[in-house]
Amino acid sequence: MKTLRGTFALLAVSLASLTATQAQDPLPSWNEGKTKESIIAFVANVTKEGSSDFVPPAERIATFDNDGTLWCEQPVVELVFTEGKVKEMAAKDPSLKEKQPFKAALEHDRAYFETGGMKTVLELVVATHANTSQKDFEEEVGEFFKTAKHPKFGVPFSKTAYLPMVELLNYLRANGFQTWICSGGWMDVMRGVAQEAYGIPPQQVIGSSMKEQWMEKSGQYVLWLQPELLTICDHAGKPVNIDLHIGKRPVLAAGNVRTGGDIEMLRYCQQRKGMPTFQLMVNHDDAVREFAYGEKNHESLDAAKKNGWTVVSMKDDWKRVFAFER
Amino acid sequence: MKTLRGTFALLAVSLASLTATQAQDPLPSWNEGKTKESIIAFVANVTKEGSSDFVPPAERIATFDNDGTLWCEQPVVELVFTEGKVKEMAAKDPSLKEKQPFKAALEHDRAYFETGGMKTVLELVVATHANTSQKDFEEEVGEFFKTAKHPKFGVPFSKTAYLPMVELLNYLRANGFQTWICSGGWMDVMRGVAQEAYGIPPQQVIGSSMKEQWMEKSGQYVLWLQPELLTICDHAGKPVNIDLHIGKRPVLAAGNVRTGGDIEMLRYCQQRKGMPTFQLMVNHDDAVREFAYGEKNHESLDAAKKNGWTVVSMKDDWKRVFAFER
Repeated sequence: MKTLRGTFALLAVSLASLTATQAQDPLPSWNEGKTKESIIAFVANVTKEGSSDFVPPAERIATFDNDGTLWCEQPVVELVFTEGKVKEMAAKDPSLKEKQPFKAALEHDRAYFETGGMKTVLELVVATHANTSQKDFEEEVGEFFKTAKHPKFGVPFSKTAYLPMVELLNYLRANGFQTWICSGGWMDVMRGVAQEAYGIPPQQVIGSSMKEQWMEKSGQYVLWLQPELLTICDHAGKPVNIDLHIGKRPVLAAGNVRTGGDIEMLRYCQQRKGMPTFQLMVNHDDAVREFAYGEKNHESLDAAKKNGWTVVSMKDDWKRVFAFER
Repeated sequence: MKTLRGTFALLAVSLASLTATQAQDPLPSWNEGKTKESIIAFVANVTKEGSSDFVPPAERIATFDNDGTLWCEQPVVELVFTEGKVKEMAAKDPSLKEKQPFKAALEHDRAYFETGGMKTVLELVVATHANTSQKDFEEEVGEFFKTAKHPKFGVPFSKTAYLPMVELLNYLRANGFQTWICSGGWMDVMRGVAQEAYGIPPQQVIGSSMKEQWMEKSGQYVLWLQPELLTICDHAGKPVNIDLHIGKRPVLAAGNVRTGGDIEMLRYCQQRKGMPTFQLMVNHDDAVREFAYGEKNHESLDAAKKNGWTVVSMKDDWKRVFAFER
């Protein structure tokens, strides 16, 4: 009996020390190596009071692209979201089957949207979602995220968040950083899922958006979506929209390789004067656990090399990609 | 000697209890009365856990107009800010002296801008400040606030903040509210002073703004101001810009009587479903300590009466208006 008690006590001590070790590692889903080390060194450096590299809490702004940086972008969620709506519309007006961008959406012609880029996807959102109230749009988004599942992984889209990046967001917040999303994706779609997926509230989500008008509809004032884009938050639109929403430059920015759409945001971050900055570029090189894809012109990786940005290899740097993995 | 010591001890106790009483009063510059009571009752009610009126911290969003609500709007600071620039421009190009809005600015024709409203002021800012870099604009704003003084009170503009409103902002933040500015004023002008005047960081300042472009100038990428308005954050533009920046409705909103420009924001706040809300309308009725002015059509006070909004009488509700008062 005594021995058994002793064994339990030892076991309890071992478990406690194991938990303590894990608690000490803020990024347990990252493999040990240069990438992980450089992230931790940056955070330690800028939060050390009295150091010449100290960054005051008010300046600790971190901006993250969403699609392909924080969660899986195969397929782009906005496309899945609008496909149901396009089908509905085509049932009422069959002529849409021959019109772009409806035709491409109905025929699952992903190449059409890949060639046209985020702008084409946004045009589809405008074509399917303008002339409704903002409230109805938000409710539709809520409904979508409750039921829709990722076609390959079979989990809700919120679960396709990359576990290492969620850990990075938590780690930054624990060190006084404000974490923001700055993405070409549709702002009101991301706002419907960012709190659940990443712990980021709507007011820290910057994205592409439609013009709105405050107007009377059936005796009630409502925000009404106009069939026109207000902001395109991709490429050169990222610095512009960060300035609109935040009014200061981030000291940390993260994007990914696919369209070159994050280069401008990372450059904008790096140009921050008077304090250290950090740039991350996620590279999709893991065909087994996620998807492997790159850019024909290699511009994101070239820019990373030229400017000294840290490239994240999903294959080598991430111990685990998703929380749902065994 | 003993008596003296006893007197000092008593005095110390009295002082300590006085300090404690003041510490308990979160709004010492407000006179006792219905307005102050209703503010404190609202905050107590929505922060009481377990109560059916409890508002979770994430939903505690408060939006404040700036000019005339948080600080003095006689004169509108943006006008003072641009007047110097207009003079410079007119010295180089005398034909501007006969062109609006330059003519009105040069002749201190405040009536021109009062009739035209915030939109006219914004046009002047665009006319004087487009085609520069965002960085240069910010530096000019910083320089302005370092040196400019209020023409009547002779203090820097940051000191024309209303002390009772600064106390209200602090009180709300101490109770877990996020405090935001939502004003027709120029976003980048307000962002240059809001931290100092109100403790509000740039990312919580919403205002009117010019279009920007991220472009190469002399071999450097910069944010460049385009001669075109992106947002007008007045009247119906307030709910629109709150949705753009915050993505949720405020539960508390405050504006003031002068142009009716805050009615839409207060209505938008009051329409928030499922939780208590609070609306404040500041009325400028104190010609002695500040200025007395109203609206010809009384629309703000009419809307307040009709919708049950709390009207703040500067004369009756505020014990002290400015921190610089004796």
